[in-house]
Amino acid sequence: MNTTAALSYVHGYSEHEARRLGDQADTLAALLHAGTAFPAGSRVLEAGCGIGAQTVHLVRSSPGARLVAVDVSGTSLAQARARVEAESPGADVEWHRADLLDPPFADGTFDHLFVCFVLEHLRDPQAALAALRRVLRPGGTITVIEGDHGSAFFHPDSAYARATIAHQVWLQSAAGGDALIGRRLQPLLAAAGYEEVTVRPRTVYADRTRPALAEGFIRNTFTAMVEAVRADALAAGLTTRADFDRGIADLHRTAEDDGAFHYTFFKGQAINPIP
Amino acid sequence: MNTTAALSYVHGYSEHEARRLGDQADTLAALLHAGTAFPAGSRVLEAGCGIGAQTVHLVRSSPGARLVAVDVSGTSLAQARARVEAESPGADVEWHRADLLDPPFADGTFDHLFVCFVLEHLRDPQAALAALRRVLRPGGTITVIEGDHGSAFFHPDSAYARATIAHQVWLQSAAGGDALIGRRLQPLLAAAGYEEVTVRPRTVYADRTRPALAEGFIRNTFTAMVEAVRADALAAGLTTRADFDRGIADLHRTAEDDGAFHYTFFKGQAINPIP
Repeated sequence: MNTTAALSYVHGYSEHEARRLGDQADTLAALLHAGTAFPAGSRVLEAGCGIGAQTVHLVRSSPGARLVAVDVSGTSLAQARARVEAESPGADVEWHRADLLDPPFADGTFDHLFVCFVLEHLRDPQAALAALRRVLRPGGTITVIEGDHGSAFFHPDSAYARATIAHQVWLQSAAGGDALIGRRLQPLLAAAGYEEVTVRPRTVYADRTRPALAEGFIRNTFTAMVEAVRADALAAGLTTRADFDRGIADLHRTAEDDGAFHYTFFKGQAINPIP
Repeated sequence: MNTTAALSYVHGYSEHEARRLGDQADTLAALLHAGTAFPAGSRVLEAGCGIGAQTVHLVRSSPGARLVAVDVSGTSLAQARARVEAESPGADVEWHRADLLDPPFADGTFDHLFVCFVLEHLRDPQAALAALRRVLRPGGTITVIEGDHGSAFFHPDSAYARATIAHQVWLQSAAGGDALIGRRLQPLLAAAGYEEVTVRPRTVYADRTRPALAEGFIRNTFTAMVEAVRADALAAGLTTRADFDRGIADLHRTAEDDGAFHYTFFKGQAINPIP
């Protein structure tokens, strides 16, 4: 949920948006953070912490780690700091405003890097991964999590819903990002010089037997995220009010009792090779 | 891999096709059959056994079960029988040629039903599920496995590859089937009168770190299946030779070292309610 200053941020920075990102992280935390815990005393960099939606989970899962969180937005950093202080008073986190392409740390400063929902917003994610690798010690690990909107399919199927998602993908692409980045995490990490790159899907599947997920993910996370680009999609002339709104209605429809929804996140892990 | 006599079978019945279906089952067996084992002595109906690609795995996983396998095609049944006799000599399987919409068994004959890659070919899958429920004892279980071609996405992305897949989906639909059926297994089973319906995705993700899956699934299963409709797609005027072949080439491209491929199967389980 971050970007370099050069880019406009497709999700925007409104208060409503901040709450949505928080809800999203809570719904998905178990799925995405499973298996991620850094040892006590290890130096961990969260690159692109945004409003701290993932930071609070890192603090909980790795209570003894020495966490440094950076983001390009001072506003987001302040929100992240407030959030962590509210949820985990006294947590030991160091905050820095920084560009991921030029992280202000000495070579090999960190034992672990954590990068979640960040690369999707960058014009050159491979360059960012390479720049981050410089501040990771040889033998240290990187953990990367991204979504892929091309993984969204649902019942009832709807051409309107698919078009509305496509507008979000188009706008993110026009802003220099890539909402379909999950599928290429493995080659991206390899091309940025990491080794032992392992990427695995983490799938959200919701139907009537999982009402909390239908509510928390289909409605309040995914559909809300797509709906957030309504004004931009109309301003760009991609669609009409009626068509866009029908797409949103059809996405909500998939959360009803006879609906179903599928979405895949990708989680990658890799190491910085020892020369 | 079956259908009612009323439908043409999108995969065809050639020897090459039979080998492909066998390869597919072997590559995917661990993923799809995990968790499926029927108790010794229980009466199990495999509805739509086709050429026995799944039957051999049922025989191995549930050695003591009393398996009855039915299919609408006598030719497929003969192949299935030969296959099981070759791979598991002496296995106790009873073979019947039968229409799934009118299974020739008394009410409540079976303790368990197993239906894999069958519903996708039927004009009325809900009616088939309901007809099968009649021969399942109250309290007995059904296990259903289906794919969903809308779950296929890959790197490098390719409009040609997507179009070529869409032609396969279109042809299957024109033949009365539904290559996107996986996403609606849950509502289908519920509408057919089953209870405690639980559906979960079983995801195939392949990249350079999984070369056997790239070869066995991307190339020899999925791409081969799409390629098998080439003549029909050309005859139907859906595409040109050049465009279709470029789509196939682009699918193969995703199996190379910097590629990646995602596909989701869905596995459902449910019970026949006790009145």
